[in-house]
Amino acid sequence: MTARDETVGPATPATGDRPAVRVALLGCGVVGTEVVRLLTTQAADLAARVGAPLELVGVAVRDVEAERDPVVDRALLTADAEGLVAKADVVVEVVGGIEPARSLLLRAIEHGAAVVTANKALLAEDGPTLYQAADAAGVDLYFEAAVAGAIPLVRPVRESLTGDRVHRVLGIVNGTTNYVLDRMATEGLDLAGAVAEAQALGYAEADPTADVEGFDAAAKAAILASLAFHTRVSLDDVDRQGITSVTADDVAWAGRTGHVIKLLAIAERRAGADGAEGVQVRVHPALVPAEHPLAGVRGAFNAVFVEAEAAGELMFYGRGAGGAPTASAVLGDVVSAARHRVHGGRGPAESWYAALPVLPADAARTRYQVRLEVADRPGVLAQVSAELAEHGVSIEAVRQTPSAEAEDGVAHLVITTHEAPEAALAATVAAIDGLDAVRSVVSVLRVEGA
Amino acid sequence: MTARDETVGPATPATGDRPAVRVALLGCGVVGTEVVRLLTTQAADLAARVGAPLELVGVAVRDVEAERDPVVDRALLTADAEGLVAKADVVVEVVGGIEPARSLLLRAIEHGAAVVTANKALLAEDGPTLYQAADAAGVDLYFEAAVAGAIPLVRPVRESLTGDRVHRVLGIVNGTTNYVLDRMATEGLDLAGAVAEAQALGYAEADPTADVEGFDAAAKAAILASLAFHTRVSLDDVDRQGITSVTADDVAWAGRTGHVIKLLAIAERRAGADGAEGVQVRVHPALVPAEHPLAGVRGAFNAVFVEAEAAGELMFYGRGAGGAPTASAVLGDVVSAARHRVHGGRGPAESWYAALPVLPADAARTRYQVRLEVADRPGVLAQVSAELAEHGVSIEAVRQTPSAEAEDGVAHLVITTHEAPEAALAATVAAIDGLDAVRSVVSVLRVEGA
Repeated sequence: MTARDETVGPATPATGDRPAVRVALLGCGVVGTEVVRLLTTQAADLAARVGAPLELVGVAVRDVEAERDPVVDRALLTADAEGLVAKADVVVEVVGGIEPARSLLLRAIEHGAAVVTANKALLAEDGPTLYQAADAAGVDLYFEAAVAGAIPLVRPVRESLTGDRVHRVLGIVNGTTNYVLDRMATEGLDLAGAVAEAQALGYAEADPTADVEGFDAAAKAAILASLAFHTRVSLDDVDRQGITSVTADDVAWAGRTGHVIKLLAIAERRAGADGAEGVQVRVHPALVPAEHPLAGVRGAFNAVFVEAEAAGELMFYGRGAGGAPTASAVLGDVVSAARHRVHGGRGPAESWYAALPVLPADAARTRYQVRLEVADRPGVLAQVSAELAEHGVSIEAVRQTPSAEAEDGVAHLVITTHEAPEAALAATVAAIDGLDAVRSVVSVLRVEGA
Repeated sequence: MTARDETVGPATPATGDRPAVRVALLGCGVVGTEVVRLLTTQAADLAARVGAPLELVGVAVRDVEAERDPVVDRALLTADAEGLVAKADVVVEVVGGIEPARSLLLRAIEHGAAVVTANKALLAEDGPTLYQAADAAGVDLYFEAAVAGAIPLVRPVRESLTGDRVHRVLGIVNGTTNYVLDRMATEGLDLAGAVAEAQALGYAEADPTADVEGFDAAAKAAILASLAFHTRVSLDDVDRQGITSVTADDVAWAGRTGHVIKLLAIAERRAGADGAEGVQVRVHPALVPAEHPLAGVRGAFNAVFVEAEAAGELMFYGRGAGGAPTASAVLGDVVSAARHRVHGGRGPAESWYAALPVLPADAARTRYQVRLEVADRPGVLAQVSAELAEHGVSIEAVRQTPSAEAEDGVAHLVITTHEAPEAALAATVAAIDGLDAVRSVVSVLRVEGA
């Protein structure tokens, strides 16, 4: 077949006698099992949409003897992943991690297979290697499932917005930490308790580091920034702060000041110190106003705002993880790659022509909420305000606990600033911390989504 | 160039010495002007993303002498649209209406040009003609801008979700009526007053029929249903009801019962009377609970929920109209089509293999709110309830104004039902209307988004 294919509809039987597109699956955990389920239960629909049947030719797993969902045909299981990728047209990788995933994908590409991966860590660490290999071989590299689960976000940013100029991407891209922060806010749990609950429910891994330290969100932020700004951003370029320092007290105070705490991934285009354009990418917990749409994103859901020059503000919302939602994203990519096998053509290649510099963390400008424990006596606010003014940080609001609520002569002072450079804020906080009347700087949190 | 193109990045200059992709623009109103602006101001970026420069070769307008935004080079204006389409690689149509848009697009396709259109009316009335022509000529037909303005919705439904099974699409897809209903709710305006205001602000046309009668929303619903369910749905298949019967009183009562009124477009897959699967597509005003995300969609914004088997519930939100947002969607398509010109390949063709029957309006099942004026005397609720029970319609809630508020012996009775078939509800309402104690059935509104 050439690229000039007929309309897919009843008048022209869709699949004709075209040979099947051979699909190999690497990994058969929660996501892999659901990929098999969709390939099986939707087989007729998928064949009609592709224009040829999709044939699952093998499933590579570490342990072929392990118990599995009955939807997985045991005859397809193999421990020989290397051998499997050599006989597929489309290779789906849902193993995760850097190796052996990278080697297997490179081997698949070398053999001329299109690859579909959900592997955000690999893409954020070494995406260009994969892109270049796919490019050299002239095959597709798709990865919708690597960011925000079921939510179509990679394709819209990579293709729909490619005629526009994206300024900013901001959102909740890690469901585990979102669930944890949610439970802290609604149930008053502390971090350890909420993480334990998430682990018991299977929402968090036994080792929750990748989620709670923000590595997972940072990998997604790097991928989104690369696509949105046509540049290369890797995991190391992301200013990353997880939720491990968020206390039950922080969460309670957030509520008292009309906010909720969310772990946000933010990528923005802005001018660097030399005036030249660059990108700044960060992941950190932030206070979000209770009335902001992101504040209402609960549990394992993800939501991402994209701001572009002509399009204005867009929001994408849906399930950010889980077997079936992730499998939906994987299958969309499998159909695209398989269609190219049947009808010709190729998906978009890496686009990094802009080659923008990555700006340092202190290039960020945002609002802050600083919470202090201060001596309960007159004049303290004046001293603190003077330090802020000194450093050019403007105050938006101050909230001071009444003396009646002071314990042991200690009062709480919560200061919200207008937008200020991170560097100025850091200097201000250091100066405030040195004041006699200030017992401690309890927390410094960014405020986003005003 | 073949489909095997190199990575687009600094190491390999993007555009090389490839010839420009010639773009022709049909129409230069609000959207067309913004298309020209993006093509001009983003020229370097667009060239890098396409792999070749985009050259605007002409702008077809009715009146070449009319005053225009200075971004439009007057030397490009022509009244000869037919001549223009013959010399372009990509033709962008933002004229609207059925003719001459259809003839011009068909002529462009015949000449081998890819076409990008924002014309929802044409696609909903005669999409298959365009699809078939594009298919026969082996060219792209893209139309992201035809539905929900800047929001990437066509591409996600057509491509990202193509490995999944969509059950339902539901949303606000007409910004004009959304603005009008919004003003009625927040300012207490009546319909005529709110429409007049929208006209004064340029949000509504001098003849607002297409918006207020629901034709625009119905066209978008037909397009979305066709894509989501891989079937053919035209404007005539949509059960359409506009907002002209919505009164200030309806809006006020909606607020009193914790709802807002929104004009919704709904497309769903369900079993017909014979048990076979079909699609039901409708546009009508509906009560939406105040806490539902759709209730918060204000002014000219659009928001669309998509429910799929594996992906679960997704939401897309953004600007649904306006020059720049619509131009963003158009340019995304232009880049896709132009990339295919340069690198080979083709976008997805029409997919209507499922060929599902369109189910009649009374196949819909939903909840209803029925508002009655009844005699203020004991036993009326019992009579009304008996009629509902008789027709198998189950009551979720009843709200009766206290006698103290009755005027001239007339009380208000507001009944919210559980999900019921439209046919049963219609029969029930007729029976209730015949009751002695019922002065009038003031309104019957569907309740969606529970």
